[in-house]
Amino acid sequence: MAVKLPLGFRVGGVTAGLKRSGRLDLGLVVGDEPLAWAMVSTENQVKAPCVHRNRSRLASRESVRALVVNSGNANCANGDAGAWDNEDFAGAAAAALHLPRVQDVLTASTGVIGKRLAMDRVRAGIPKLVAALGDDVEPFAQAILTTDLVTKVASASLPGGAEMIGIAKGSGMIHPRMATMFTFVLTDAAVPQERLRSAWRRVADRTFNQVTVDGDTSTNDMAIVLASGVRAVDEEAFEEALHTVASQLAQAIARDGEGATTLVSVRVTQARSDDDARRAARAVVGSSLVKSAVHGRDPNWGRILCAVGSTGVIADFGSLTITLQGHVVFQGESRPFDEAVVSQAMHADEVVIEVALGAGDGSGEAWGCDLSAEYVRINADYRT
Amino acid sequence: MAVKLPLGFRVGGVTAGLKRSGRLDLGLVVGDEPLAWAMVSTENQVKAPCVHRNRSRLASRESVRALVVNSGNANCANGDAGAWDNEDFAGAAAAALHLPRVQDVLTASTGVIGKRLAMDRVRAGIPKLVAALGDDVEPFAQAILTTDLVTKVASASLPGGAEMIGIAKGSGMIHPRMATMFTFVLTDAAVPQERLRSAWRRVADRTFNQVTVDGDTSTNDMAIVLASGVRAVDEEAFEEALHTVASQLAQAIARDGEGATTLVSVRVTQARSDDDARRAARAVVGSSLVKSAVHGRDPNWGRILCAVGSTGVIADFGSLTITLQGHVVFQGESRPFDEAVVSQAMHADEVVIEVALGAGDGSGEAWGCDLSAEYVRINADYRT
Repeated sequence: MAVKLPLGFRVGGVTAGLKRSGRLDLGLVVGDEPLAWAMVSTENQVKAPCVHRNRSRLASRESVRALVVNSGNANCANGDAGAWDNEDFAGAAAAALHLPRVQDVLTASTGVIGKRLAMDRVRAGIPKLVAALGDDVEPFAQAILTTDLVTKVASASLPGGAEMIGIAKGSGMIHPRMATMFTFVLTDAAVPQERLRSAWRRVADRTFNQVTVDGDTSTNDMAIVLASGVRAVDEEAFEEALHTVASQLAQAIARDGEGATTLVSVRVTQARSDDDARRAARAVVGSSLVKSAVHGRDPNWGRILCAVGSTGVIADFGSLTITLQGHVVFQGESRPFDEAVVSQAMHADEVVIEVALGAGDGSGEAWGCDLSAEYVRINADYRT
Repeated sequence: MAVKLPLGFRVGGVTAGLKRSGRLDLGLVVGDEPLAWAMVSTENQVKAPCVHRNRSRLASRESVRALVVNSGNANCANGDAGAWDNEDFAGAAAAALHLPRVQDVLTASTGVIGKRLAMDRVRAGIPKLVAALGDDVEPFAQAILTTDLVTKVASASLPGGAEMIGIAKGSGMIHPRMATMFTFVLTDAAVPQERLRSAWRRVADRTFNQVTVDGDTSTNDMAIVLASGVRAVDEEAFEEALHTVASQLAQAIARDGEGATTLVSVRVTQARSDDDARRAARAVVGSSLVKSAVHGRDPNWGRILCAVGSTGVIADFGSLTITLQGHVVFQGESRPFDEAVVSQAMHADEVVIEVALGAGDGSGEAWGCDLSAEYVRINADYRT
C-alpha cells in the first residue's frame, strides 16, 4: 500500500556506509516552508547530542525546516567531539539544502553508543540524500531502522483533506525505551505550534510511553511531529488522528520487539484514574515473568495479579477480574477454566490481557511482546 | 561441610507429596524455648495468607516457638479458603509439637499461585516431619526449594561462641522478588527483640533488597531471623555477622538465578548517598540489556551508562568511571581498551561491574545474574 506524503514535504533515504550490513542509514525530511513542530524526548540523564540540540531548538519556540537522521551509530557518550560531530551533521544537511540557518535542521541518531560517527561518510552521503528527495516514504522508513525487522508506517486522513503519516523505529523490547525509539509524524494540517505541542504530549503519554514498564529511557529516544500548515483542520479531529497514528506505531514497535512472536496488549479498566490504569498496564506488559508465560502460551494469571499488586495502584483485590483472550481466569479468586482452551487461544498474533481493578472508571492500555530465547541471542550478540 | 546448628533449635524436612517431582516439600524449625524474632516481608499489595498472618504476629511483638514451611504451592489468591488452610497448616504443626498456642507457629508457603493447598497431604506429612526433627539442616534447606538448583546455606561464628546459620531459597532472577525469596536465619545469640528487628531491617536493605531492580515484589517473600537467646553477644559483632550471612545468601540466590551462568556483582561508589549508590547498582544489575550483554560476554559499557542515567541519581557524567572485571572501559567518555581481553575476562563465575559516580562518598552493592535463553525456557514452561 502506497502511503500518501502530506503536502509541503519531501523525504528520502540513502546508504552512507554507517551500517556494516550496507543497508540504508541516512534519512531526511524537508519542509517546503517553515514547519511547526513538537517533540517529546528521553528523560535519561545521559542524552545524546542530537537530543540536547533538539531540546534547545524546542526551547526557542522557533519553527524548523528539516530533520536529518542516521542509523548505525547513536553518537552518544563521545564527549565534546560527539557534540561537534552532531553540529556538523546538521551543518552538512543545511549546506546541501541551501538553508542559511543550521539551526533550522533537527538531528536524530540511533545505533551503538560510544563510537565516533564516521563524518567522512556522512558528508559524502548527504548530497546523495538531498538528490534522492521525493515523495516515497519507504527509503526514509528503512534508513532509520536498527535491529527492526520491518519498517513501521501508519497514516490517517482528516476531514477536509489533511493528511498525516507516521514513521517509527523500535527494537529492543524488554526495556524498549533502552533501545532507541524514534517516531516522526508529518502532517499538512495547520495547527498552532503551542496546540501541537500540548496535543503531542498528551498523545505520547497514552501511546509511546505505554510501550514500556520501568521508566528506563534510552539516551536517544525522540518522537517528533512536523506540520507544514497547508490545510485547515478541526483540532479535536486532529488530536484524534494523531492518537490513532501514534497508537498504531506503538503497537507496531511492540509487535516487532526483538525476538517477539506475539503482540501483548494489556487493557486496564475500573482504575481510580487513567494514570493508575496506565501504570498497572505497564507493569503487567513489562513483567518478564508474564512475558515468558505468554511466550509459553501458559495462562498463568498469578503472575499478572502479582505484577498489578507490585504497582501500588488502588484496586479491590476481592473483585479484581483478569481476562485472557476473552476468558475470565480470575475474579477475586481463582476461576475454573479450561487451561488447554485458553492456552490454545493464546497461540495468536496478539494476546490480549484485560484487568478490571474494581476501583473506579479510569482506563489505559499498554503494549509489549513476549520474551523469547531469541531476544537473549540478539542482545548477547548485538555488538560482537 | 557440615553446618553446626545453633543451640536451642531442632530442624527437619520431609516429602509430603506437594511437588510433582516428589522432592522434599515440608520443613520445620522448632525452638526449645520461646524465640525472639524479626521479619521483613513483601510489599506487594497481593500478599499470601502466610505473609498476612506472620505480619499480624510481628505486630503483637510476642515471641514464637516454631516455623513451618511448604514448597510447591504458594497458597496465594485462594480467597478465604486459602486463609483457613494456612491457619490449619499452623494448627497441624502446633498440635504435632504439643504447643498449646497456634499463634506460636509461623508459616511460609512458596510455589504456584491460585491452587488450593492439598491439606490432606499436609496433615499426613506433619507428624512425619516432627518425627524427623534433628540437627541436620540439609533436609530443611531442600524442603524450601522450588526451581532452585542447589540449597543455600551460610553460617558465621561469633566471638564468645554464639553461632548463626542462614538458609535461603531464590529462583526467578530477572525480577527476583517476583519469585519467592525465603531466608531463615537461626542463631543462639541473645539479642533483645527490638534490637534484632532494627538490625534485620538494616541488613535486609543492604542485602536481599539489592538482589532486585524494579521494586517488583512477590506475594510470599519473607526473611525471618529467629534467636534462641542462649549465648551473650556483642551487638555490633552480631549485626556484622548477620550482614555477612545475609550477604552470602543474597549472592547465592543471585548465582542460582534461573538459567544463570554467572553471578553479576555491581559496586557503585562516589555516590551522593548510600541510598543513591544502591539504587544505581540495582538499575545496572537489573537491566535486561546489561544482563544479556554479560551473557554474551560483551563489554558493552553503553548499556551500563544508560542504566545509571535512567535512575536519576546524581552523577558527574563528565568524570563517571566504569570498570569491568578490573578494566577501565569508560571515564567521562569512551576509553580505548582491548575488547577481546575484557570479553575473555568476563568468562568467569562472577562478573564485577564497578561504577564511580564522581558525586560524593556513598557506596552500595547489588547482585544479579546474566539473562540466558534458559531463563525463558524455565519461565515459559513453569506450570505446563
